[in-house]
Amino acid sequence: MRAGLIDGKAIAAEMRAEVRAEAELLTKEGWAPKLVSISVGDTAAAELYVRNQQKQAENAGVEFEARSYPNETSLEQLIGILQGLNGDPRVNGIIIQRPLPDHIPVKVLQKAVHPLKDVEGMHPATIGNIVYNDLALGPCTAVAAVEILKTLPLQMEGLNVTVIGHSEIVGKPIAFLMMGLGATVTVCHHMTRSVAMHSRAADAVFVAVGKPGLVTGDMIKPGAAVIDIGINRVETPEGARTVGDADFDSCAEVAGWITPVPGGVGPVTVATLMKNAVMATRMQMEHYRDAYARTEV
Amino acid sequence: MRAGLIDGKAIAAEMRAEVRAEAELLTKEGWAPKLVSISVGDTAAAELYVRNQQKQAENAGVEFEARSYPNETSLEQLIGILQGLNGDPRVNGIIIQRPLPDHIPVKVLQKAVHPLKDVEGMHPATIGNIVYNDLALGPCTAVAAVEILKTLPLQMEGLNVTVIGHSEIVGKPIAFLMMGLGATVTVCHHMTRSVAMHSRAADAVFVAVGKPGLVTGDMIKPGAAVIDIGINRVETPEGARTVGDADFDSCAEVAGWITPVPGGVGPVTVATLMKNAVMATRMQMEHYRDAYARTEV
Repeated sequence: MRAGLIDGKAIAAEMRAEVRAEAELLTKEGWAPKLVSISVGDTAAAELYVRNQQKQAENAGVEFEARSYPNETSLEQLIGILQGLNGDPRVNGIIIQRPLPDHIPVKVLQKAVHPLKDVEGMHPATIGNIVYNDLALGPCTAVAAVEILKTLPLQMEGLNVTVIGHSEIVGKPIAFLMMGLGATVTVCHHMTRSVAMHSRAADAVFVAVGKPGLVTGDMIKPGAAVIDIGINRVETPEGARTVGDADFDSCAEVAGWITPVPGGVGPVTVATLMKNAVMATRMQMEHYRDAYARTEV
Repeated sequence: MRAGLIDGKAIAAEMRAEVRAEAELLTKEGWAPKLVSISVGDTAAAELYVRNQQKQAENAGVEFEARSYPNETSLEQLIGILQGLNGDPRVNGIIIQRPLPDHIPVKVLQKAVHPLKDVEGMHPATIGNIVYNDLALGPCTAVAAVEILKTLPLQMEGLNVTVIGHSEIVGKPIAFLMMGLGATVTVCHHMTRSVAMHSRAADAVFVAVGKPGLVTGDMIKPGAAVIDIGINRVETPEGARTVGDADFDSCAEVAGWITPVPGGVGPVTVATLMKNAVMATRMQMEHYRDAYARTEV
């Protein structure tokens, strides 16, 4: 193996320390950051995930309230709950846990979260602000993947980047974020004629498709960075394992740097959620002051 | 010259006929489409442009009111004016003419236009909806450029597309729109190491930079489509001329199709504005009915 292994846990720990310091500052000003997580219906699948968020939040000095609603809760009721949270000054960020029951369209709920409390970075206005290069809450996974690349000794301006996967919440936001940093970005997907042609020309490859083994070493330019966003459970003779979208062994022979799965993008994603929580709290504090403190001017 | 010349005027005329038919339908339902254009300060530079929009609107059956405000108008006054127009059911679309005086930040005004009346497709929420592939009002120039490509006998899925220029209102939206159609998209800009490497690999090249002669024939793959969005005034021994960003003569020798400047993307952009006007009117009608007609259900 020639590639440097990127330590997502260490990057996440550093981010959490920054978040904790910011959370302390905000708390002193009367704005202790607080997240509310909304789960609906059978939440067993997501429970471990929510508990991990809770632990990370406490670790970062962010209050975390996990709410569970029964499967029968209607869309109207959920929107009402979100409107209540939007209007509650003690709540600074709202997380909508997936999966949701079939009768709840996730996009409608995401649009009902106020953009200033959209710590998951899913509201269309949030996405639009990223395109406009405005400082905004970004989709956590995409922001985490880009933050990881930024820790490497690479010049972002002019960097040739290939993104494999064009989902709205990962691939496309990575593309805008990297464009905003001055990279030359190509986005590939299942309709691309030759993914290898594009990935082999790239200084950095992001892959977020959900197919184990999709990217192999022969698709990577020697010395390039491979940021693997896939999380797949596969059965092996030694039992079930979690792997990414890149074939780790062959890519690690060729790449300059590679993220492991698990322990790469995953921990940084949760740390980004906490970073968004304190950013959202500060934005709300400033928005509040702008709105109410004008008489002092 | 081997390239087929793309006739923007003919494409625009066809779009205007569709718009006129839709405007007549809406008028019969009591929703005659109406645009309001806002100019601020010294408007001589934009006057010809506004008059052309007015003519095209009348031609398409869309009412057009051109308003001019003095240079001293404050940002607060303009936002108040926009809020009035947002709330006026007889106004279906708002156009903010550029340039604006220095004390008026264009983005603040664009955000003050209600997304349903955003016929120029500039609101962050509009951009976000495009990224999410929702049917929405798109930025006119970008939509026009893509509409032109769609008239050619090319399969959009898997098409290799290079966009030169990554502005928020042209290059980036072209990139998402083409991704939405299944193309593999690369976005180049002034920090790209070798634009030619990317443009030569593309089946279609969009260029929107504002530099005459930027794209030459040796940068184009034989048979590719060249969509030229640049509009530049240049001095020649025969007087001032309007040219695009592509060196027309050398590109036309190599390309399969090329848009002329003028007469290419320009007329289709104005037709797209009118198409947005009727789309906005229909969206407002449906929104109004959703909001007020629930008691009938």
